[in-house]
Amino acid sequence: MHLFRHGTPTFFPQTPSVSAGRADAAPHGRSEAGGPAVTGFSLDNGLDVIVVPDHRAPVVTHMIWYRNGSADDPIGQSGIAHFLEHLMFKGTEKHPVGAFSKAVSGLGGQENAFTSYDYTAYFQRVARDHLGTMMAFEADRMSGLVLDDAVVAPERDVVLEERRMRVETDPSAQLSEAMAASLFVHHPYGIPIIGWMHEIEGLNREHALAYYKRFYTPENAILVVAGDVTPEEVRRQAEATYGQVAPQGARPERRRPREPEPRAMRRLAVADPKVEQPTLQRLYLTPSCITARDGGCHDLELLAEVLGGGSTSYLYRKLVLEQGLAVNAGAWYMGSAIDDTRFSVYAVPAEGVGLEQLEEAVDRVLRRAPAEALGAEAIERAKTRLVAETVYSSDSQSSLARIYGSALAIGETVEEVRRWPTDIEAVTKDRLSAASERWLTPARSVTGYLTKTKDADAPVAIAAE
Amino acid sequence: MHLFRHGTPTFFPQTPSVSAGRADAAPHGRSEAGGPAVTGFSLDNGLDVIVVPDHRAPVVTHMIWYRNGSADDPIGQSGIAHFLEHLMFKGTEKHPVGAFSKAVSGLGGQENAFTSYDYTAYFQRVARDHLGTMMAFEADRMSGLVLDDAVVAPERDVVLEERRMRVETDPSAQLSEAMAASLFVHHPYGIPIIGWMHEIEGLNREHALAYYKRFYTPENAILVVAGDVTPEEVRRQAEATYGQVAPQGARPERRRPREPEPRAMRRLAVADPKVEQPTLQRLYLTPSCITARDGGCHDLELLAEVLGGGSTSYLYRKLVLEQGLAVNAGAWYMGSAIDDTRFSVYAVPAEGVGLEQLEEAVDRVLRRAPAEALGAEAIERAKTRLVAETVYSSDSQSSLARIYGSALAIGETVEEVRRWPTDIEAVTKDRLSAASERWLTPARSVTGYLTKTKDADAPVAIAAE
Repeated sequence: MHLFRHGTPTFFPQTPSVSAGRADAAPHGRSEAGGPAVTGFSLDNGLDVIVVPDHRAPVVTHMIWYRNGSADDPIGQSGIAHFLEHLMFKGTEKHPVGAFSKAVSGLGGQENAFTSYDYTAYFQRVARDHLGTMMAFEADRMSGLVLDDAVVAPERDVVLEERRMRVETDPSAQLSEAMAASLFVHHPYGIPIIGWMHEIEGLNREHALAYYKRFYTPENAILVVAGDVTPEEVRRQAEATYGQVAPQGARPERRRPREPEPRAMRRLAVADPKVEQPTLQRLYLTPSCITARDGGCHDLELLAEVLGGGSTSYLYRKLVLEQGLAVNAGAWYMGSAIDDTRFSVYAVPAEGVGLEQLEEAVDRVLRRAPAEALGAEAIERAKTRLVAETVYSSDSQSSLARIYGSALAIGETVEEVRRWPTDIEAVTKDRLSAASERWLTPARSVTGYLTKTKDADAPVAIAAE
Repeated sequence: MHLFRHGTPTFFPQTPSVSAGRADAAPHGRSEAGGPAVTGFSLDNGLDVIVVPDHRAPVVTHMIWYRNGSADDPIGQSGIAHFLEHLMFKGTEKHPVGAFSKAVSGLGGQENAFTSYDYTAYFQRVARDHLGTMMAFEADRMSGLVLDDAVVAPERDVVLEERRMRVETDPSAQLSEAMAASLFVHHPYGIPIIGWMHEIEGLNREHALAYYKRFYTPENAILVVAGDVTPEEVRRQAEATYGQVAPQGARPERRRPREPEPRAMRRLAVADPKVEQPTLQRLYLTPSCITARDGGCHDLELLAEVLGGGSTSYLYRKLVLEQGLAVNAGAWYMGSAIDDTRFSVYAVPAEGVGLEQLEEAVDRVLRRAPAEALGAEAIERAKTRLVAETVYSSDSQSSLARIYGSALAIGETVEEVRRWPTDIEAVTKDRLSAASERWLTPARSVTGYLTKTKDADAPVAIAAE
């Protein structure tokens, strides 16, 4: 169950495989303008609360978001945010290990949890009558977690096995890790969410408890409730549960170094006999929706959609349909991040096409993009697609909750979420063109080749593909 | 004077330019076996003392080494070790700014200071009668430094200007920085000694004082005195000066993350109109003399010498003399490091030779090295050269002091320094061959191209060199 629980959402950003890439680009996550009448307030102990009404069915999605993710892992303890996410299921003074999960399933509910670079979140979906029960359990483990060595060491083994399965045996995940490490030379976004193997091995109970005490506080959390409830009900129930957790006086500090201005274009290659399909990956260091709050992130979101959003996008059209050099091609942008982030372009070569040849074609296509790709019609189509995609995903209650939770966890406001479709509509051809020229430059880029070798130890000359 | 003082030694490892590369490889630094009768002892407050007798002239070299360098900079405060080195000349309660330097020059002495990855050191060379005076000054600034904002801000401007001069306007330094950042994805050896520009800008008096209090303590320092003195004299004078500095109870902790096992070969390119001479640089992540204490570092030291130590080395002979593809080629190894370190191969192309063509040739030559380069005679020659070089450098009193100081600062013993020539002599062809195959592999490598562009903004396709 753990492996499932920590499935796609957890490792998504870290292993943007080619097919997953698109989804990753998607919904930096906003609701349609004039969408649900979202209410926000704070409890006395500093807990922020967001209520998203959705009265279509008598269910609620209950999420608690903590403003700490893997990029807040103390130095030398990479993976601890994710490890603690596992340990949060190990029981409290009041509820022994398994009691919470048993309660959720006993009530016919679902639960999940995930760790990302900037936040960690826990959620349950239950019938509306059980919201108070979920809050009581979740509030209890905000301060009452019990960890002993008998629990910590075996769970660390679980995480190590998780890393072995996901990364150590998967060349594509290795390429992703190496590319992120190369793109972010200084910022912790270059460190995998799950952590480096040798540092996970060193994590212990003391690390976990210190981390828990530092970050699992009411001031650092955001409660998001979406569903068939009123703000008044939520406030009353939240005060009776979360409201009882003692505040720590201040929100914990996030200490993150800023990435220096990149100067060198970088390339790397992972070659492995297990590779079934060679791929070409490219990352560019770009601002995020927080570092480019002036709207620069909307330009990049739309640019990714125009260039590489699906099979009508420019890259797909050129490389797959017209030139026949690729069987897939696209782009995505991880705008939802506190610090400078990644914009990706990828392509999968057609039979008999080398990665070098494909890369040249990609670069040729990208160079012509400002002149060729940014027609009024293409831009309109991309806007419609991008906004519609988000509207569709808002149709799911848990997606909606997630859109608000992730936005607030990185420091955006409800108003920014609501304004997003309008902001996307406002992007112009000139802004797209300027974003492309400003950010998609060689010095800001890392290019990765995933290739198949017959022999794992054979030297790889990526130039000789 | 500051810029001179912080000259070559400070930035050497960080900007291993092609011509400087060789020297950098040099003397991990040892004296000949059975060399001077070095004496070591500790004061009651924890200060370690090393006395290296040299009675050829009535002079002494007085050095104080602190076991902290740029790799110990707190996260987000890169450059602070080096910044503090500057600030250490700003005066104390007893001696106003300039008094110490004036005393040194008034006594006809010389002084210098440098910051490296693993240590920071200050030294003076004076007539033997003035040793006590130097000790008194140096002990005074171990605990009595006075910093006010009037001094800190202008000095920060000096360092920023130093960085502008050395890095921002020098594409070769930019390549070196990018390569180190790419080689060390996690360990702080990937951060430049001088610091990232935007982090130097943020350094202030509070950072400097906190750093000073943490690291400038008797327990963290090593006093090295080489020259016309006896251990008894040194002990007496050291007790009267350094002995008066209050201990802090324990040596400060160095917290450094370990580098994960590399998986992807990496490449990068810096292109700039200011480049006069294209170059090819290669780094491999290898153990250091501390992480490979079993002798692995001696293998790598000798391997660098055989492959690329000067104009009789294998790389030079093949690439410059036989094939005419390069005007220079060589290798060096930075064994003197606490954590895993870098082994470098470099080549400068002959007129009309592209970097890609040169790289292919380098790789061809390296592949054949185990079979071709490791003849008994070549190995013997390299051993003689390497040991002789160190013996020659030991002939300079300050080099001798530096050999002991740097070894002890990274955690080696006097005995290890003395045994070094014997250890080098013991390296066999099989060990060289094994080291080459184990460490000089694609996955452990970063390859850098420095190229000239006409237009600074032109896209660079390094594959199309």
